[in-house]
Amino acid sequence: MTKRIGLNAFNMTAAGHQSSGMWRHPLSEAHRYKELDYWLELAKTLERGRFDAVFLADVLGPYDVYGGSVDAALRDGMQIPANDPFQYVSAMASVTERLGFALTASATFEHPYPLARRFSTLDHLTKGRVGWNVVTSYLPSASRNFGTTPMAHDDRYEMAEEFMTVMYKLWEQSWDDEAVELDRERGVFVNPAKVHPIRHHGRFFDVDGFNMSEPSPQRSPVIFQAGASSRGRRFAAEHGEGLFVNVLNSKLSRVITDDIRTQVEAAGRKRDDVKIFTILTAVIADSDAEAERLYAEYQEYASPQGAMALFGGFSGIDLGQFDQDSPLAAGETNAIQTVLDLFTKLDPSRQWTPADIGNHMSIGGVEPVLVGSPETVADEIERWIDEGDLDGINLSYAVTPHDINAFVDTVVPELQKRGRVWKEYEGKTLREYISGPGNSRLSPTHPGAQVARAEG
Amino acid sequence: MTKRIGLNAFNMTAAGHQSSGMWRHPLSEAHRYKELDYWLELAKTLERGRFDAVFLADVLGPYDVYGGSVDAALRDGMQIPANDPFQYVSAMASVTERLGFALTASATFEHPYPLARRFSTLDHLTKGRVGWNVVTSYLPSASRNFGTTPMAHDDRYEMAEEFMTVMYKLWEQSWDDEAVELDRERGVFVNPAKVHPIRHHGRFFDVDGFNMSEPSPQRSPVIFQAGASSRGRRFAAEHGEGLFVNVLNSKLSRVITDDIRTQVEAAGRKRDDVKIFTILTAVIADSDAEAERLYAEYQEYASPQGAMALFGGFSGIDLGQFDQDSPLAAGETNAIQTVLDLFTKLDPSRQWTPADIGNHMSIGGVEPVLVGSPETVADEIERWIDEGDLDGINLSYAVTPHDINAFVDTVVPELQKRGRVWKEYEGKTLREYISGPGNSRLSPTHPGAQVARAEG
Repeated sequence: MTKRIGLNAFNMTAAGHQSSGMWRHPLSEAHRYKELDYWLELAKTLERGRFDAVFLADVLGPYDVYGGSVDAALRDGMQIPANDPFQYVSAMASVTERLGFALTASATFEHPYPLARRFSTLDHLTKGRVGWNVVTSYLPSASRNFGTTPMAHDDRYEMAEEFMTVMYKLWEQSWDDEAVELDRERGVFVNPAKVHPIRHHGRFFDVDGFNMSEPSPQRSPVIFQAGASSRGRRFAAEHGEGLFVNVLNSKLSRVITDDIRTQVEAAGRKRDDVKIFTILTAVIADSDAEAERLYAEYQEYASPQGAMALFGGFSGIDLGQFDQDSPLAAGETNAIQTVLDLFTKLDPSRQWTPADIGNHMSIGGVEPVLVGSPETVADEIERWIDEGDLDGINLSYAVTPHDINAFVDTVVPELQKRGRVWKEYEGKTLREYISGPGNSRLSPTHPGAQVARAEG
Repeated sequence: MTKRIGLNAFNMTAAGHQSSGMWRHPLSEAHRYKELDYWLELAKTLERGRFDAVFLADVLGPYDVYGGSVDAALRDGMQIPANDPFQYVSAMASVTERLGFALTASATFEHPYPLARRFSTLDHLTKGRVGWNVVTSYLPSASRNFGTTPMAHDDRYEMAEEFMTVMYKLWEQSWDDEAVELDRERGVFVNPAKVHPIRHHGRFFDVDGFNMSEPSPQRSPVIFQAGASSRGRRFAAEHGEGLFVNVLNSKLSRVITDDIRTQVEAAGRKRDDVKIFTILTAVIADSDAEAERLYAEYQEYASPQGAMALFGGFSGIDLGQFDQDSPLAAGETNAIQTVLDLFTKLDPSRQWTPADIGNHMSIGGVEPVLVGSPETVADEIERWIDEGDLDGINLSYAVTPHDINAFVDTVVPELQKRGRVWKEYEGKTLREYISGPGNSRLSPTHPGAQVARAEG
């Protein structure tokens, strides 16, 4: 049996996301990230391509490690400026009927009470098409905007655990299913006996009351996670329903997904309770040769500095400190070793200079890039999915909306012909796409479902 | 010269807002507050009626003073459940071209850094049609959801002052006008020399960086305020560009607006730098007699308990503690005196029992209610505006969308015929409606404009 390949679109309400310099390409409309029309078009395109969801990344501070300043990130518009992704959703929801929306929000900088309501509101307005990409925030530049000291990595996760508990109590426990009676005769809009203050008093949070929003179609949004550290992966195995991973290369892929599914089992859930999606970029043209030409053309717009700004952001390592054209020498310093570990996994056959890394990352970041005809790209996607025991992809882009349109217009029909992408949505809520028709609520094995009636 | 009457629509993303029990009326669609279609229709209606803005109230905790519990508020859906108003805006913006959106957000519970970005994002997406109703939050039930102790009234305003300073720095100072160069040749998306960290270190907030969003059409959203206390009114006179007031009765109206405009002058601004809008509800039918019949019909659905829940919320006084059918006796306790002061101003000619107050407030709250034919309502609005030196109204409703549709379909054309409501919008941004075409940015006398280059 071949698995359905779930399609998600990885995006950000910013001009530069994973690829850098590509905003300069004549076909790029990346600078239109602040226009509603741009996103309405994109949402309709993705729904036409039967995507499960558009997945919106977010940060709350700029990247300032490369060269010790924010200059490279700003100069390339690399995730800065970046607008608030939540504010785009209701408009996109109003021109679509099935497309889901997975939104990044931080369990480090948000407060659970208003965030629970924000998601509930969007779940109402979208009729159950919302997901939450739970992140803990690591950027010192963000901490400085909140007047806080960055927390140690494991403390962040401890706070995130309590954060999740509060959210589940608000979403799953504080309102009974039938609390809103809307009884015009008896004059009962809400039956007060069916609404329960959560009385949460923990190490990090005190939240006394009940959710401001009545229960929404999914109650809890679909929980996405992308934690890559061992603590992060444990958190993901407990809470995640969808996981976004960088599988680096197709040989490593199954090692990573096996490890994740084993941890999911260890957390008392079923191996396939978590759907795993790999991030990738596809550069597509009518033939393989033309696609290679297009890829070469994209490379002319590469901004290695922008890419190194992004790399500095997520790794904390300033590639600007090294000679740009000398291969990084293994083991010289811890920082170099860390960089090399990553890039050797990406492609063990080559030597990497900082300039190489910057150029390579300018198209698709550290994630895989598929280059070819629709058939070739479809072949490659099938191979990655099947070899890696993956459930789908999170499609990034180099040049937007060109690459996304090309994928929807040519690769999707090819994958549909092969029976790997559905021709019609099955179900109406985002959780149904992930967990099957009829399953709009958290699975009984999920920790959120266990909170549901624990104190109710 | 007759002044233009500015129209705003006072609403809330909740089933019950100012009027209680009205959700039971057969024409009411108030329970559809969680459906996008309901709001898209409403937005289009308001734009057809040439409203400046829809004004969305908000609270972050339920009303729990009346009867010592949340039961009455829940039973009547009285501002609970209440969704997040921000999440509704982009959808409404996508089906309108001119209607503005004024959103309530708390300078007590929000953090300035993400809130600045949220407003900037919406100002981009709406192309400059966003306003901010600045509130300081007083509800103990909200504090308990944030694990904080309610602050003393004046401390709240001191924090709000610093909050505003941070917001102005982020909006007005941190990005130069020409910072986004979008220079494809030179590869400069943003010129880093034109972006300035604000380095704010104050008593309540430490915010180091610059706004995550690039400058939006209005930069700062239009600042609305509704502070009624003397400290609140001083804050409003400093920061407000639009003020929502309860003028209680038409005789008192000019006393209140004169006081406000004098304080605006004292703050170094011009008397008419602030536009003052009175909240009112209109019950309209073809003739005065029919309107009276409709009003009587509405009264059959009144929920005095819901109204007293609302009253308890904003006053802190539990009307449930008194005999419901005995006139409140002046001076007996401080609490009674406070209630009487308010209701005597509302109508000095009558004696008030708690039951009277609950019934009266069920339609339109403590604000004026106009009942009559379109001509009568238009006459009354003109009289209130001219006698009170007001700039417009903030139209509430008893039964939604019926009352709003009736106003747009019958009263607006009447006021247009009289030259009091514009037939076409003049300008494109919300600030232009308030300050005149061409004035999309804060007036030079506004404290936010003074922050703009203070440290830049």
